[in-house]
Amino acid sequence: MKATLMYGAGDVRVENVADPVIQEPTDAILRVVRTCICGSDLHPFHGLPEMEHGVHTGHEAIGVVEEVGSAVKDIKVGDFVVAPFAFSDNTCEICQAGFQTACPHGGFYGNPGDRGAFQAELSVVPQADGSLVKVPGVDPETASEELLASLLTLSDVYLTGYHAAYMAEIKPGQSVTVVGDGAVGLSAVLAAKQMGAEQIILMGRHQARTDLGREFGATHVVSERGEEGIAKVLELTGGFGSHAVLEAVGHMPAYTQSVGVVRPGGIISRVGVPQYEEAPVGFMSLFGKNARLAGGPAPVRQYLEQAIQDVLDRKINPGKVFDRTIALDDVPAGYKAMDDREALKVMVNPAL
Amino acid sequence: MKATLMYGAGDVRVENVADPVIQEPTDAILRVVRTCICGSDLHPFHGLPEMEHGVHTGHEAIGVVEEVGSAVKDIKVGDFVVAPFAFSDNTCEICQAGFQTACPHGGFYGNPGDRGAFQAELSVVPQADGSLVKVPGVDPETASEELLASLLTLSDVYLTGYHAAYMAEIKPGQSVTVVGDGAVGLSAVLAAKQMGAEQIILMGRHQARTDLGREFGATHVVSERGEEGIAKVLELTGGFGSHAVLEAVGHMPAYTQSVGVVRPGGIISRVGVPQYEEAPVGFMSLFGKNARLAGGPAPVRQYLEQAIQDVLDRKINPGKVFDRTIALDDVPAGYKAMDDREALKVMVNPAL
Repeated sequence: MKATLMYGAGDVRVENVADPVIQEPTDAILRVVRTCICGSDLHPFHGLPEMEHGVHTGHEAIGVVEEVGSAVKDIKVGDFVVAPFAFSDNTCEICQAGFQTACPHGGFYGNPGDRGAFQAELSVVPQADGSLVKVPGVDPETASEELLASLLTLSDVYLTGYHAAYMAEIKPGQSVTVVGDGAVGLSAVLAAKQMGAEQIILMGRHQARTDLGREFGATHVVSERGEEGIAKVLELTGGFGSHAVLEAVGHMPAYTQSVGVVRPGGIISRVGVPQYEEAPVGFMSLFGKNARLAGGPAPVRQYLEQAIQDVLDRKINPGKVFDRTIALDDVPAGYKAMDDREALKVMVNPAL
Repeated sequence: MKATLMYGAGDVRVENVADPVIQEPTDAILRVVRTCICGSDLHPFHGLPEMEHGVHTGHEAIGVVEEVGSAVKDIKVGDFVVAPFAFSDNTCEICQAGFQTACPHGGFYGNPGDRGAFQAELSVVPQADGSLVKVPGVDPETASEELLASLLTLSDVYLTGYHAAYMAEIKPGQSVTVVGDGAVGLSAVLAAKQMGAEQIILMGRHQARTDLGREFGATHVVSERGEEGIAKVLELTGGFGSHAVLEAVGHMPAYTQSVGVVRPGGIISRVGVPQYEEAPVGFMSLFGKNARLAGGPAPVRQYLEQAIQDVLDRKINPGKVFDRTIALDDVPAGYKAMDDREALKVMVNPAL
């Protein structure tokens, strides 16, 4: 089969490799219907050390189950499923509490990794019963591109934005600031809108993206950054700042901006993977104003059934974050297009 | 009148000074019935630079209103009140949301400061209507020492522990770890018990204090610190850690310990004033396990009516944290006793 491997920063190759096989009785093999490139794939694309053998890439997919291990009971061959970007048993105390990305029997696949790397024709999914969720009543052969795109976002990007909003405990009527106009930030706007936020301020400066942000529900766009951006948001919020700040970038300036625009008692919810370990949390930043810090890798599995239903009911159409569809062979060019910000988010159709 | 002033680290003096006067129409003058020394008073006691004029100290009091400014409507001369350690208008959007310590028209008094410094016979309270809360049906002249002690804790220490528990969103049946066996930590144990925590692990090593912690509801005491202490708590919590961690110290080792013992998705709630500005919050500390960080200066005013009622109903007896009562003249010795950990918390009776 064809699969994508990364051999170092900027070095992405599509190669013919052996088909994956069931290794654990809880595994399933997925034929990938659609996969995509994630903003977080750009981190190794920038920084992966050069290596001889390469690592398999990709962690987002919808697909059809080709084979299941002997212990897989709920997921059947032929099921059309969404695969969360992390696997989990979905039965332990941590999963039941809704934090499947911290499941002691789970983990992150792909990016990098050799089990469950989805930028390929086929992939192994560990803990298939605890991870995969069937999409009821949809045949991927006849489904619209729009529907497939929206279902694919439930693997990571939309539900990561949703997780930001969920952990920020957004209540109807509140003011929300979203930091970052990437696909996750725009998803966070859409999720905040779903939760009834009254004011949604999107901090971003790429017009095509902020235009989609407005379509998703942003009431204001602030293109200024740093102190200037903070002043603008404070002005829009009566001097207080927002109840919820959804941070979808992961770099320190986005954190600093979030601290500046969160109101006393408000919540900063981060889903951009932090590219720092230490940050200000003392009296002058979080503590003095009782601001809270939340967020982490989205437990997509927790939100998946409801989100699939919302997509099927056309309540949300998060697939609009994709602005390009390519074949597997073009994945290296897709990385470059996202890195150059020519593309917002690139979908991959292995059948092309 | 007699008042306490600090002239530098370790230099606390009780002096005769002019009686305070009403300066703003929203001020009231309070005759202090009981005040006390706070763990946070020990920070300037350790680090205040030497100064010529000294600063007035103290921020916790119960007292009787002697005089009110022309704009004070609800609080009357003769009222027996609890004074929160911060003042607030209690009408603005931030106060109404329950974060009075961040009121844009409020502030912290005492410690250091010359308005509302309570280690004195008399003190000015700014924003009297928004800050003071009357204790119904109690005459401080005839009330028991036990009742006065418990009411005094509502000025700061008990409700600061309560705030830690409240912001940690403790639910019945949960596991809670309290870091620190000072008066705030013990108060946090009591508050966690009130909220229905099933397992309360107190991390502390002073037996007299941990004994009171057990009386307040601690089910386990862990005297080990650092990695050893973390391992002990993980062992007591099935390897997962606690749902809520109440950090009542403020130093970096307490933060690190809190990160180590919080379970995935759990909340670290800090009320120990951080003696650091930066701390680990990235993938390896908070983000990876979706742990949350909450807390700040307790909005005592928000919790005060209910807490006064709970004390009057004898539902809680937080005054047990006081293990000594002294006269104003003995305040310098009181600081030393707390600093030497001879005393857990020192009450001051200006009438002695």
